[in-house]
Amino acid sequence: MEWATSTTVRATIVQASTVLFDTPATLDKAERLLAEAAGNGSQLVVFPEAFVGGYLRGSTCGTAIAYQAPKGREEFRKYHASAISVPGPEVDRLAGMAGKYKVHLVMGAIEKDGYTLYCTVLFFDPEGRYMGKHRKLMPTSAERIVWGFGDGSTLPVFDTPIGKLGAVICWENKMPLLRTAMYAKGIEIYCAPTSDDLDSCPSNMVHIATEGGCFVLAAVQFLKRKDYPPPPEYVFANEQDLTPDSVVQRGGSIIVSPSGAVLAGPNYEGEALISADLDLKEIPRAKLGFDVVGHYSRPDIFSLTVRDQPASIVAFTSSAPAAVITDGTKTGSSQKY
Amino acid sequence: MEWATSTTVRATIVQASTVLFDTPATLDKAERLLAEAAGNGSQLVVFPEAFVGGYLRGSTCGTAIAYQAPKGREEFRKYHASAISVPGPEVDRLAGMAGKYKVHLVMGAIEKDGYTLYCTVLFFDPEGRYMGKHRKLMPTSAERIVWGFGDGSTLPVFDTPIGKLGAVICWENKMPLLRTAMYAKGIEIYCAPTSDDLDSCPSNMVHIATEGGCFVLAAVQFLKRKDYPPPPEYVFANEQDLTPDSVVQRGGSIIVSPSGAVLAGPNYEGEALISADLDLKEIPRAKLGFDVVGHYSRPDIFSLTVRDQPASIVAFTSSAPAAVITDGTKTGSSQKY
Amino acid sequence: MEWATSTTVRATIVQASTVLFDTPATLDKAERLLAEAAGNGSQLVVFPEAFVGGYLRGSTCGTAIAYQAPKGREEFRKYHASAISVPGPEVDRLAGMAGKYKVHLVMGAIEKDGYTLYCTVLFFDPEGRYMGKHRKLMPTSAERIVWGFGDGSTLPVFDTPIGKLGAVICWENKMPLLRTAMYAKGIEIYCAPTSDDLDSCPSNMVHIATEGGCFVLAAVQFLKRKDYPPPPEYVFANEQDLTPDSVVQRGGSIIVSPSGAVLAGPNYEGEALISADLDLKEIPRAKLGFDVVGHYSRPDIFSLTVRDQPASIVAFTSSAPAAVITDGTKTGSSQKY
Amino acid sequence: MEWATSTTVRATIVQASTVLFDTPATLDKAERLLAEAAGNGSQLVVFPEAFVGGYLRGSTCGTAIAYQAPKGREEFRKYHASAISVPGPEVDRLAGMAGKYKVHLVMGAIEKDGYTLYCTVLFFDPEGRYMGKHRKLMPTSAERIVWGFGDGSTLPVFDTPIGKLGAVICWENKMPLLRTAMYAKGIEIYCAPTSDDLDSCPSNMVHIATEGGCFVLAAVQFLKRKDYPPPPEYVFANEQDLTPDSVVQRGGSIIVSPSGAVLAGPNYEGEALISADLDLKEIPRAKLGFDVVGHYSRPDIFSLTVRDQPASIVAFTSSAPAAVITDGTKTGSSQKY
Amino acid sequence: MEWATSTTVRATIVQASTVLFDTPATLDKAERLLAEAAGNGSQLVVFPEAFVGGYLRGSTCGTAIAYQAPKGREEFRKYHASAISVPGPEVDRLAGMAGKYKVHLVMGAIEKDGYTLYCTVLFFDPEGRYMGKHRKLMPTSAERIVWGFGDGSTLPVFDTPIGKLGAVICWENKMPLLRTAMYAKGIEIYCAPTSDDLDSCPSNMVHIATEGGCFVLAAVQFLKRKDYPPPPEYVFANEQDLTPDSVVQRGGSIIVSPSGAVLAGPNYEGEALISADLDLKEIPRAKLGFDVVGHYSRPDIFSLTVRDQPASIVAFTSSAPAAVITDGTKTGSSQKY
Amino acid sequence: MEWATSTTVRATIVQASTVLFDTPATLDKAERLLAEAAGNGSQLVVFPEAFVGGYLRGSTCGTAIAYQAPKGREEFRKYHASAISVPGPEVDRLAGMAGKYKVHLVMGAIEKDGYTLYCTVLFFDPEGRYMGKHRKLMPTSAERIVWGFGDGSTLPVFDTPIGKLGAVICWENKMPLLRTAMYAKGIEIYCAPTSDDLDSCPSNMVHIATEGGCFVLAAVQFLKRKDYPPPPEYVFANEQDLTPDSVVQRGGSIIVSPSGAVLAGPNYEGEALISADLDLKEIPRAKLGFDVVGHYSRPDIFSLTVRDQPASIVAFTSSAPAAVITDGTKTGSSQKY
Repeated sequence: MEWATSTTVRATIVQASTVLFDTPATLDKAERLLAEAAGNGSQLVVFPEAFVGGYLRGSTCGTAIAYQAPKGREEFRKYHASAISVPGPEVDRLAGMAGKYKVHLVMGAIEKDGYTLYCTVLFFDPEGRYMGKHRKLMPTSAERIVWGFGDGSTLPVFDTPIGKLGAVICWENKMPLLRTAMYAKGIEIYCAPTSDDLDSCPSNMVHIATEGGCFVLAAVQFLKRKDYPPPPEYVFANEQDLTPDSVVQRGGSIIVSPSGAVLAGPNYEGEALISADLDLKEIPRAKLGFDVVGHYSRPDIFSLTVRDQPASIVAFTSSAPAAVITDGTKTGSSQKY
Repeated sequence: MEWATSTTVRATIVQASTVLFDTPATLDKAERLLAEAAGNGSQLVVFPEAFVGGYLRGSTCGTAIAYQAPKGREEFRKYHASAISVPGPEVDRLAGMAGKYKVHLVMGAIEKDGYTLYCTVLFFDPEGRYMGKHRKLMPTSAERIVWGFGDGSTLPVFDTPIGKLGAVICWENKMPLLRTAMYAKGIEIYCAPTSDDLDSCPSNMVHIATEGGCFVLAAVQFLKRKDYPPPPEYVFANEQDLTPDSVVQRGGSIIVSPSGAVLAGPNYEGEALISADLDLKEIPRAKLGFDVVGHYSRPDIFSLTVRDQPASIVAFTSSAPAAVITDGTKTGSSQKY
Repeated sequence: MEWATSTTVRATIVQASTVLFDTPATLDKAERLLAEAAGNGSQLVVFPEAFVGGYLRGSTCGTAIAYQAPKGREEFRKYHASAISVPGPEVDRLAGMAGKYKVHLVMGAIEKDGYTLYCTVLFFDPEGRYMGKHRKLMPTSAERIVWGFGDGSTLPVFDTPIGKLGAVICWENKMPLLRTAMYAKGIEIYCAPTSDDLDSCPSNMVHIATEGGCFVLAAVQFLKRKDYPPPPEYVFANEQDLTPDSVVQRGGSIIVSPSGAVLAGPNYEGEALISADLDLKEIPRAKLGFDVVGHYSRPDIFSLTVRDQPASIVAFTSSAPAAVITDGTKTGSSQKY
Repeated sequence: MEWATSTTVRATIVQASTVLFDTPATLDKAERLLAEAAGNGSQLVVFPEAFVGGYLRGSTCGTAIAYQAPKGREEFRKYHASAISVPGPEVDRLAGMAGKYKVHLVMGAIEKDGYTLYCTVLFFDPEGRYMGKHRKLMPTSAERIVWGFGDGSTLPVFDTPIGKLGAVICWENKMPLLRTAMYAKGIEIYCAPTSDDLDSCPSNMVHIATEGGCFVLAAVQFLKRKDYPPPPEYVFANEQDLTPDSVVQRGGSIIVSPSGAVLAGPNYEGEALISADLDLKEIPRAKLGFDVVGHYSRPDIFSLTVRDQPASIVAFTSSAPAAVITDGTKTGSSQKY
Repeated sequence: MEWATSTTVRATIVQASTVLFDTPATLDKAERLLAEAAGNGSQLVVFPEAFVGGYLRGSTCGTAIAYQAPKGREEFRKYHASAISVPGPEVDRLAGMAGKYKVHLVMGAIEKDGYTLYCTVLFFDPEGRYMGKHRKLMPTSAERIVWGFGDGSTLPVFDTPIGKLGAVICWENKMPLLRTAMYAKGIEIYCAPTSDDLDSCPSNMVHIATEGGCFVLAAVQFLKRKDYPPPPEYVFANEQDLTPDSVVQRGGSIIVSPSGAVLAGPNYEGEALISADLDLKEIPRAKLGFDVVGHYSRPDIFSLTVRDQPASIVAFTSSAPAAVITDGTKTGSSQKY
Repeated sequence: MEWATSTTVRATIVQASTVLFDTPATLDKAERLLAEAAGNGSQLVVFPEAFVGGYLRGSTCGTAIAYQAPKGREEFRKYHASAISVPGPEVDRLAGMAGKYKVHLVMGAIEKDGYTLYCTVLFFDPEGRYMGKHRKLMPTSAERIVWGFGDGSTLPVFDTPIGKLGAVICWENKMPLLRTAMYAKGIEIYCAPTSDDLDSCPSNMVHIATEGGCFVLAAVQFLKRKDYPPPPEYVFANEQDLTPDSVVQRGGSIIVSPSGAVLAGPNYEGEALISADLDLKEIPRAKLGFDVVGHYSRPDIFSLTVRDQPASIVAFTSSAPAAVITDGTKTGSSQKY
């Protein structure tokens, strides 16, 4: 295990909105915000869940139990068209941005694999390389209408010069066994791209920081009604009460230290860059009292098994292991733990 | 599995201090407070960690690395003398109190087994019966000087008329695998007797409530300098700055609902009874969105093994299994999950 | 588990010699010494290994590998005649002595069961009752010529008003698993009747005290050449160099506290009563740092099984379990652990 | 089982102090002392507990029960920074030293695994190879604040040309079941790196030698006040009474033969090389009378189970068993017994 | 267990023949020989197998496989008529003889129980009391035509003033588990009424003496052709070669000491009283080297279960246990072992 | 069960002496005698107890009760050095001999396991394979000073083309329960390597043959004073009466048939090859009258339990069952009974 060579890392959360159904414009916006963060000296930039491809807040894609409206089917077709392939040209463009601005980039994106969509987080390094991805394991409630379920093979933690870096998406953060897997891989900078703007979200993040002994960066989109198409194309549940400037997702991005101290946020004001300097020495200081997979664990009583092989519905025997390797997940992760 | 027959449960946390090194007086105080809570209609009364036997806050029992002061050895002897055997006369007295005042009683106590002490929580029912116990698995930092380590055999969740009841002590609450075991047993009223009065403690409790979809009751002692013997018998780290009325543990007891709403507390004012009415219907309401061991789990990826047999350093073949059965832990727990 | 009700116990080791091949005279001598110890206020009197029946130091009963001299067979016959049955009249007499002088009595004796002899320790209480016995499990070297091998059914620890009392004989004290069984039964006053007068013996006893966190009382006979029959009936290995007053076993009885402090002895001077006041509060004080079967054990890694049922070469189905029960071993022991 | 091919082994204990918080300087000092020992013909060199990384004698890392001073957290961070990864560059350097000076090297070190520290002993052979390690199973008292708990997978005994070699650390030496595991693996040269300088320590070592029928080498650091940072950075319990030359750990390194004879030490004078020639023929000579896991054992009554698999809090199914094998523990140990 | 109070016992074997089919005459002959033995000072007199009732040597009672001659049925009727009931008048007469001549009497007899015959040995004491009996467990070859099979309830060993006394009949003596049962009861004077006059019989008896560490007394009838009815009533297999004085069973009675020394016999000369003085001190002398159920047993490996309850084909529930008690077997046996 | 394919087996006992403390020379001598026996057509060659490693007749290794002379410890060390490991190079050499001369070889040897010695018999087949071993269960008298105690796991009976083959050592032959275990495994050729040259030994062997219905081959060393080192290194009990040619163990090897007929020996003359042709048809002929575990047993009354699992004082869970399987004992034995 290598130890982080920097002792302080400047990190920035981008609290902003997707340009919905316009992925090139979304990438332009991403680059603009990334440039600004890099100009402020940031070494790590974290975007919210589904920033590329967008988050269909308030929608059910025309679907109720045992009912699918044709309009909803068309909405899904557009959503699929806005999603990106991994690898693919949008991934290349994002890698290029990271290299140009010399930052570690953590980007929420909607990934398409055939015709199933995944809520994915992509990782890039300052040399402009795509490092790997995490696919959300468990969509929440109505998300299950539009997104598939990730498997155990994309739980990377990358051993980088700014510390061990990984991401867990939205309410996955409430899954104690998933978090434990991340802790076991030694995560130090725990990114939480999310769409949760509830009052309890900051408490969840403070808890994770003190449980995992890591920095936590929760990145949330700030969304107004006008960020979505107007009715009748897109109708919110309480559409009649909304103006174009009504806030439909209030942000709440936050940065927490391993001791549970809030370093920045929660910001409920608007689109913003939310930054903090992360003193990595705080990590061992916090571990003196509590080390969740180390001295404070009880492996004699509890042991967690993580099946992290790809789960494939069809395996062609002539080409078994290739996909994993090209993904880079294995080589880049901290799986020595 | 039985479903709770009440829909609302009045619960009270006793935020108060031990009469240190005087166990009979502590039990008298417990009874007085219990009577008061019962008088207010409380059906469940939860006392803090180590209420019987006491919590040696600020002490190290004269111990530093490779050093044990004779004074500390004597302090430990007194602490051992104040601890209780389970079963034993103090347990009988507590059972009698629960029966007299017709409450479910959850009581933190220091248990002695030979000459090793355990930080234990005891459970009693309104019929005046001792139901079982939970021994703290992992003492924190300097607590490891004075307390032993529980095993996996005392993780009960009791299926009672007021809901499924269990307890996790102090920083055990930061152990995700232990919590997952409690969730898997179906815990609905999650008691957290603790000595943690840090700013992050309420966040931990809110997180657990939303993660577990359960009510959380964190019970903390409120302690002043005068609750401990005066120097030189007992010396706090910053002794010179303290008056008899200096607060050395500020309480912070709190009750949280499954949705993460704070129903009572945190109370940092003084000794108090902190009560709330728990609407058990909140539990299924919360589970729609997130059920940590149900629809939101991924058993294809994560599986947790809990070794909950007693761990015995010596087994005599002529008398092997008796102790476990008499403890009642097995019969009272919700181990159908 | 009951806790000792006395806090200080006066204990005496009798360092004296058997009247060899004259058991009535040996019992007379035992009573004389017991009376003296009781007169000094002693509550516990411990005699050496094989005090009743004698220890054939320096003998091989005429035996070498594949050789048995007739003289040796006759020596064994006399030794058998000097040995006692348990129960039996000599046991009754010893019980009477303990009752008359109101002491706990721990007596080394040669027990006969059929024609096999066992090196046994007998326990008596101040009410004049025989409590039970321990048979030496493993005789040492040439002792294996004259003594049989005890089984796991006589490893009692008695829960008495002066503390938990047991005995381990001679080099059994070097058997770590046997000692661990005694520790698991909660032994507090660890008697070690022995014939080991080597330089290393006091170190063994200090070690056991600090390992077990108990008081250790090693009782050794003090023996001169004249305590054995003169040649040619009895010939020592170096007979020619000996005078009647030559010391052939130099004693070395010692009393050690749980902290490893030597409270009395080692005495190499002659026959003597060796006494100390045992402050039972020293036990919890010592356990703070080390509790061999408690907080300092690792039952997740190490577990010891003790087969403590009687091992019987032939069982008659019409009368199976009686012998064990009447021995008192089971009822008197501390087997709640 | 191979038998040792040498009949006499020259062994040296290095009784010296760490250069605290300066691991490169500590390694320089180790090499200097190793060269000196090798120059004297030593084939085996044993360093004390925690020589690399240091032993925080008298400290509690600012920790009392329920209290952690920020200063203590920073002390822990520095301690973590001084600790070494296994494998890692410091291990490579130590292996190189052993090869250069053609000795078997047994080195106490603080190992970091993630952010938990372990008190570890490392083994190297004269060909310059790292052989494996033992992690201390149970830290003592306040050590539990700074060190984690080893599992059963690192109990190696190495079958080397100079005899079967293993190590047990500090008060682990008082754990009878752990020692029995080592005896069962056939240990002949039993190294005891320790920080115990109590009067009882030599007795413990003599006992182990006679119990195990092995050579015992207890290596203790000799430490003065000036070996630690001056106040206020580092404050001893009795700081005000100390001068820079005050001895705070008096050494006491000792070498004992299987018969219990003390071959060298205990040395309480100062830093020193303590050497003895170990005549391996003493081992069978001692076993005639007592063989703890052989003719003097009672497997029909006592049997010890040792769970020696790695205890892992999280197992990733894609990469399960690799770590153990590369450690060398399994291949190098004497587990044929 | 009581120990024999005599040290030397004069014992006599009666080597003589039954008066076939004339039980009163047989009893007269028995008394005559008993008187003679007593006159010689004998304290113990042992008669051969089937002395009362007779041994149908050379007969098959007219039976071959699947064939029974009427003559044989009549022979069996006469044999049944000569047999005795136990208790009964013949038993009373034998008890009277033992009392009159003040000897322990061991008598072989054919016992009838209904219409099944048993080969039985009866025991009487010098006070003229019937003590109990042993029924042969397993008849040999053609004996199975005329005798039934005993059960496990008549294996007595009587604790008498002349030592522990029992009997095993003929080739039962080759049953190692039966012998072991007798050894476990502490047998010291092992009577072997037998009809075996083979060359190997003395070896069997020497073996038993050294195996059991007991005195062995093998009593054999001396039989000529004329002791049986003349042809055609009784026809020997080789009838044509026989004269009335032809020896058809040559005796061979023998007395062996515990060391294997032959004290008297084997006598192949004729009817005779064969006597020896048994020095009971030889028993402990022999046990020094070998004690078959004591120090030389391995109860951890071998354990023998003896079902010694009566085996009854029909049990009437109103009167279960009476028969056993009135037999005296239980009260007189040495079942303390 | 396979039936022996030969009907007559030529068997040879080697009555000869060890070259004491010179194992290579002993093996040379073994090969010379084996070649000679094979040259005579022998198919089975049986060597005495302890032929490889030697039998320390008349010695006590300097040991009396509570006394061990240094000279004796050194004698034990030399004895340990002369003993062999199983498996090991000497076992390989013996296997090679059996293969070269195409015989079944039964060889007495001193086996070392750690530092405990066992009196063992090794079995080899004509294909040059090591088949398994039997360790003596119970050493006799002073042998207990130098040898350990075998467990129930090495009681093999091998089903070979020359019949079912097993071995019982010296006074084990007087253990009725051990013999019964061998009978139950169907032993046909019962080898008895022994050091018993008493007058009673041939009787013991005749008894076993008639009891077990098997051929018995008792192999005894013939030893003169000069086969041992001269005084003062080695001193017999009656040293002063001996010349170098004094016979100190007179042999007495003997071969007995199932009917009890002596086929060869006892030979008390000197070193010799003692041979007989074993007609395997004698076995069923003898079983007509007596079959000890067949028609002549009483399983309704007597049942023997044999605990034949390995008895291990320490079990490491990572490597439990390997040793037993590789020993070959299980696969080669006749455990179908």
